[in-house]
Amino acid sequence: MDQHQPEHSTAADPRLDKLAEVAVRVGLGGLHPGQELVMTASIEALPLVRRITAEAYKAGASQVTTFFSDDESTLARYRHAPDSAFDHAPAWMFEALAAAFRGGAARLAIVGEDPNLLAEQDPDKVSRSNRARSKAYRPALELITASAINWTLVPFASAAWARAVFPELPSSAAVAKLWDALYSSARIDRPDPQAAWAEHNATLLARRAMLTERRFRSLRFTGPGTGLTVGLADGHAWMGGISKARNGITGNPNIPTEEVFTTPHALMTEGTVAATKPLAHGGTLIRDIRVRFEKGSIVEAHASSGEAVLQKLIGTDEGARRLGEVALVPHSSPISQSGLLFFNTLFDENAASHIALGQAYKKCFTDAESMSDAEFAERGGNSSLIHVDWMIGAAAVDVDGIAFDGSVTPVMRQGEWV
Amino acid sequence: MDQHQPEHSTAADPRLDKLAEVAVRVGLGGLHPGQELVMTASIEALPLVRRITAEAYKAGASQVTTFFSDDESTLARYRHAPDSAFDHAPAWMFEALAAAFRGGAARLAIVGEDPNLLAEQDPDKVSRSNRARSKAYRPALELITASAINWTLVPFASAAWARAVFPELPSSAAVAKLWDALYSSARIDRPDPQAAWAEHNATLLARRAMLTERRFRSLRFTGPGTGLTVGLADGHAWMGGISKARNGITGNPNIPTEEVFTTPHALMTEGTVAATKPLAHGGTLIRDIRVRFEKGSIVEAHASSGEAVLQKLIGTDEGARRLGEVALVPHSSPISQSGLLFFNTLFDENAASHIALGQAYKKCFTDAESMSDAEFAERGGNSSLIHVDWMIGAAAVDVDGIAFDGSVTPVMRQGEWV
Repeated sequence: MDQHQPEHSTAADPRLDKLAEVAVRVGLGGLHPGQELVMTASIEALPLVRRITAEAYKAGASQVTTFFSDDESTLARYRHAPDSAFDHAPAWMFEALAAAFRGGAARLAIVGEDPNLLAEQDPDKVSRSNRARSKAYRPALELITASAINWTLVPFASAAWARAVFPELPSSAAVAKLWDALYSSARIDRPDPQAAWAEHNATLLARRAMLTERRFRSLRFTGPGTGLTVGLADGHAWMGGISKARNGITGNPNIPTEEVFTTPHALMTEGTVAATKPLAHGGTLIRDIRVRFEKGSIVEAHASSGEAVLQKLIGTDEGARRLGEVALVPHSSPISQSGLLFFNTLFDENAASHIALGQAYKKCFTDAESMSDAEFAERGGNSSLIHVDWMIGAAAVDVDGIAFDGSVTPVMRQGEWV
Repeated sequence: MDQHQPEHSTAADPRLDKLAEVAVRVGLGGLHPGQELVMTASIEALPLVRRITAEAYKAGASQVTTFFSDDESTLARYRHAPDSAFDHAPAWMFEALAAAFRGGAARLAIVGEDPNLLAEQDPDKVSRSNRARSKAYRPALELITASAINWTLVPFASAAWARAVFPELPSSAAVAKLWDALYSSARIDRPDPQAAWAEHNATLLARRAMLTERRFRSLRFTGPGTGLTVGLADGHAWMGGISKARNGITGNPNIPTEEVFTTPHALMTEGTVAATKPLAHGGTLIRDIRVRFEKGSIVEAHASSGEAVLQKLIGTDEGARRLGEVALVPHSSPISQSGLLFFNTLFDENAASHIALGQAYKKCFTDAESMSDAEFAERGGNSSLIHVDWMIGAAAVDVDGIAFDGSVTPVMRQGEWV
C-alpha cells in the first residue's frame, strides 16, 4: 500500500487555467481592445488572479487592476478601531470604482469569503459598517445592476470557505473537495468547458423566452411554511445565463449560474415565506428565516439565529423590506444535487428558487433600453442600498404563474419545471 | 556541532512589530482621530501590512486601505498586453489617491521592489508605461510633495530585493541579512527605537537650521569626475528628519533617513558630475552616469549601461533635465558604513550626498506656507512629472558653500561635515 498522499495544490491544478479562461472568455464575454479590467479578490486567490490577469491581457486589456482584501486586516479593524470608524467608508475608493466603470472598465469579482469571518464581532458594528459601505458603493453598483459594462463573478476555494462547507474534513482535503464541487458546477470538468457553457446558455435562453412571453401578473410559491404571491413588474422580462451589457459585450455575469430571474413589483407581494437554506450575510449565518409580506413590504420577520442581523438588514432603508428579484431554479440543478450548503450566494442561489430583498435589476424589462428611472419605479422596480438573495425553493415547493385574467399555469411541481 | 539552521522567518521576528510601531508613531507621526490611511505594498509584505494596519487602528484610524502590487501580474502585462497598453494608465485610480489625500487620508508606502523586475523588458515599453503613470499620478504626488498630509516610506526585505543585494547568498540567508541591515539603519535594533529616532531627529534639525541660516547662493561639489556648482533657490530652507505636514502632524517621511536637503534653482546649475552609485530606475540599473549641466539643464548625459533608460528619463519633460533637490549626507552615515549597495533610493540616497532630477519640494522655503505656485517658479523651484534621486557623494567628494558675496565656506571635506 502506498502511503504517499500528495497535498492538494490549488496553483498546480490545470483546472485553474481552464477556470481563468472561462472567467474571461465566457464570464466577461471577452474584452474590447484596450479595455481595462478591475478585479477584486482575497490575497489567498492570488494563483487565480494571476491566471485571469494573463488571460485578460491576452484578450486585449490595457490594464488589469486588482484590489486585494485580507481577512486579518478586516478583523484588525473590528479589534482595534475606534467605535465611530464603523459609520465610515472610504467613499473615494468606491467613487474610483464608479469612475473606472464610467470610463469603460470591465469588472470581475473572485468570491470565496469566509462565511464566518465576522461571526464573533459586534453585530451592531457589522451592520453599521455594511451600511456605510453599501451607501458608498451605490453609484458603482448601479452601473453594474444596469449592465453598463460587462462583469462577472467567479469562485475560489479559500481554506476558510472550505472549512465552513466541510467542517468534518482536514483543511487540505476540504479545499480539494470544495474545488471539485466548484469546478463541476462551473462546468470546468467538461472536456470542452466553453462549448458546455454555450449549450447551457442556449437552454437558459429558451426557458427565459418562454416565461417572458407568458406575461404572468404574479407567481405563487406553495410549500411547507410558504404561501407567497410575488407580483411581477409591469413589462418585466426574464433574464438568465448570458446578458448583453450596454457596451455591446455579451457574457455570463455569474459563473456558475442555473437561474432565470426577473423583477417583482415592489408593492405587490403578499403572504408568508420560509427560507429553505440559511443565509450567509456579512459574516453571520441567518437560519430559518420566516417572513410575512403585506403590500410588497415585510411586516414581520423572524429567524432562529442571526435575527438581529436580519432586522438590521431589512431596516437599511425602505426598499430593503421589498423584493428586487425573483428567480427560478430547478431542484435537479447540479449545485442542488451536490447536496452541499455552500454558505455563499453565488452557489446556494443556484441550488434553489429564490427571492432578493432590495435593489431590482433595470435590465429585466422588455423595453429596458429606453426606460427612464421614473418609469422603472412606476412599473414596480424597487430601489435600495442592498441586494440580498435568499433561498425559498426546494423539492417540496410548487410554483404557479397567475395571469392578469386570474388563470393559473403550473410552472414548477416538486421543485422541477413542468 | 549542531547542524540545525532554522530558516529565517520574517513574520515571527519581533523586530517586525517594532518596525510597524516606528512606521505609524514616528514615520506618520501618529494619526488624527478618525483619519484614514492609504497604504501601498507588495503582496509579499503582507506580514508588515497586517502589523501596520493594527497599529494604525490603535492610533485612531477609521479605515486602512491597502493597495497590493504583485510582480507576476506586472510582468504578465509586459508579456501579453497589446503594445498600445503601455501609453495607458488607470487615471481613475490615481485620481482616487488624490481624492483620498484631499479628504485627509495619510499615506504609507512599503518599499522593497525587485530592482531587476523589468530588466529584460523592452525599455521603450517601460519608459512609456512609467511616463503614463507619472502623468496620472501627478495630482496625488503634488499633494505629497507639498506635505498636504502626513506620509512615510518604510522598507520590507522582499526575496527579490535581497537577491539583488546579496547575490552570492542562498535566498533565505540573503533575506535575513537584508533584514539585519534594514532594522539597523531604521534604528529598530536600538533598545528604545522611538527614543533613538527622537535623538536622531534633534541632530538633523540642528544641522538643517545651521545651513538655512547661512543662505548660500550655491553649493560646489568637487571630486573625481565632478566639478559641479548647484545654484540654490531664492529663500530656500534646508529640511531633513521630521517634517510638519499642513494637517498639523509632524512625522518622518522616510524611515530610515540621514539626509538634509533643499531646493536648487532650476536655472543655475553648471558643470559636470559623475554618479558615485548605480541608479535603479523602473527596473533597470543605470551605471556610471556622467552628466553636464548648462544654465541648470542637462546638455550631455552618458552611462556605461542603461543609457537608453537615462535618456528617456531626462526626456520626460523640460523639468526632467533640471534639478529638484540637493541633499547632503556624511560618508560616516550608518547606511554608507554598511558598505552595501541597496539598489533602492530610500537606502542608497542615505549613503551619500545626492541630487534629484525633476519636481522640487515646495516645503523647502523659509516662507513655504504663504508662497504661491508662481512665486515657487520665480524663486527657482523646478516642475516635472518625475523626481529621481542619484548619488554624487563619496569619501573623495568635497562640498563648499558659496555666499552671494563670492566667499567660500567649506561644508564637507572627504565626505564628512566640516
